[in-house]
Amino acid sequence: MTGSDGVKALFFDVFGTLVDWRTGVARDAELVLKPLGLMMDWTAFADAWRDQYQPAMEEVRSGRIPYTKLDVLHRRSLHKVLASFGVKDLNEGQLDQLTQAWHRLDAWRDVAVGLARLRQRFLIAPVSNGNFAIMCDLARRNDFRWDAILGADLARDFKPKAAVYLAAAEAFDLKPGECMMCASHSSDLRAAAANGLRTAFIARPLERPGFSERSPGLAVDVFVQSTLELAGQ
Amino acid sequence: MTGSDGVKALFFDVFGTLVDWRTGVARDAELVLKPLGLMMDWTAFADAWRDQYQPAMEEVRSGRIPYTKLDVLHRRSLHKVLASFGVKDLNEGQLDQLTQAWHRLDAWRDVAVGLARLRQRFLIAPVSNGNFAIMCDLARRNDFRWDAILGADLARDFKPKAAVYLAAAEAFDLKPGECMMCASHSSDLRAAAANGLRTAFIARPLERPGFSERSPGLAVDVFVQSTLELAGQ
Repeated sequence: MTGSDGVKALFFDVFGTLVDWRTGVARDAELVLKPLGLMMDWTAFADAWRDQYQPAMEEVRSGRIPYTKLDVLHRRSLHKVLASFGVKDLNEGQLDQLTQAWHRLDAWRDVAVGLARLRQRFLIAPVSNGNFAIMCDLARRNDFRWDAILGADLARDFKPKAAVYLAAAEAFDLKPGECMMCASHSSDLRAAAANGLRTAFIARPLERPGFSERSPGLAVDVFVQSTLELAGQ
Repeated sequence: MTGSDGVKALFFDVFGTLVDWRTGVARDAELVLKPLGLMMDWTAFADAWRDQYQPAMEEVRSGRIPYTKLDVLHRRSLHKVLASFGVKDLNEGQLDQLTQAWHRLDAWRDVAVGLARLRQRFLIAPVSNGNFAIMCDLARRNDFRWDAILGADLARDFKPKAAVYLAAAEAFDLKPGECMMCASHSSDLRAAAANGLRTAFIARPLERPGFSERSPGLAVDVFVQSTLELAGQ
């Protein structure tokens, strides 16, 4: 089980690279908040929540707070986002339901088939900043068949910290150079490359139009438009 | 996704409970050593290796050595076992091949279908002392479709230490009482119960005839003869 260049495992970023967080979070926000008589730009709400993602993880990466799983960070930042949209007084059940939106995201159309093909030749695992429970729910919903769920919860730190990539390679008993990080974000691939992993850039122009990278900002081993194209190589 | 008693996830012991380590290790030992002109009681060899299992892990559990994955412990104890059978001068490749025997074990006949059925109602994960790489290889070989691979490598300690069970429940965002440990060994279930998990005893009289427990040595929530019987409950 190995690629022609010695790659034995493919590691996948998940939010944006495999699943469409923006449409999913906007849909669930509408589902929860509209029946309460609230109206807003649901996509802007999703974007605002996502904008809290890096600052929230930076608290952990910097060591200011101990490792805290993404579900908990999402829930904390939700208060700030709701406040910025003038929403208050949601009950615990409603807050939970909103936070669970990140567990109910749909994959881009190529992904289930693309991963199934790649799985015939490679070990495959998510190496995401999402915690185990999110990854399990997304896998069930979208029919991803992972060999293992690796990533932040295993390393107890967040990408792009080196520990996350290295713990993933170590879990499969592989050298970093036998692993390829696949992502639609250059920052993720830059950190993977700095730790000796191979890199594949998967363009996701629809992740957040206007902000999505159409091409990698670094030299990568593979540059494709989908997981199916990756499987074809 | 929940059982009538609030159980949401099933955790499985693997060696003995799901896979037949004895036949598999004996078979691979013969495969590697017989062509070298060596003859021995291959099953006795498997048993002798397995006898080193608890003492090797105890070095970690006691804190005498840092967490060391089972593949490495297997490799270390292999030298001792080979010596006791009068075998020496194997090369690295042969030692690796023998150690990999633990990655090539076959499941008891009920397991693939039993787990597939249980997966329709529960999250399922191995909570084994085996490391990620062993669990991934056994899953591919035997068509186990896990939600995640939990266990020793995640907790960085070995059962029956509490951390292993608690880290597994935490990974799924569940309370211990929402998880059920399924094993053919009372010691495993006793520790699981002490940490608040539910318990299922799966009898495996063929694991090591003469030593296998035919019934649980503690009060358990469920006592069955196979994973199929477990799925039927």
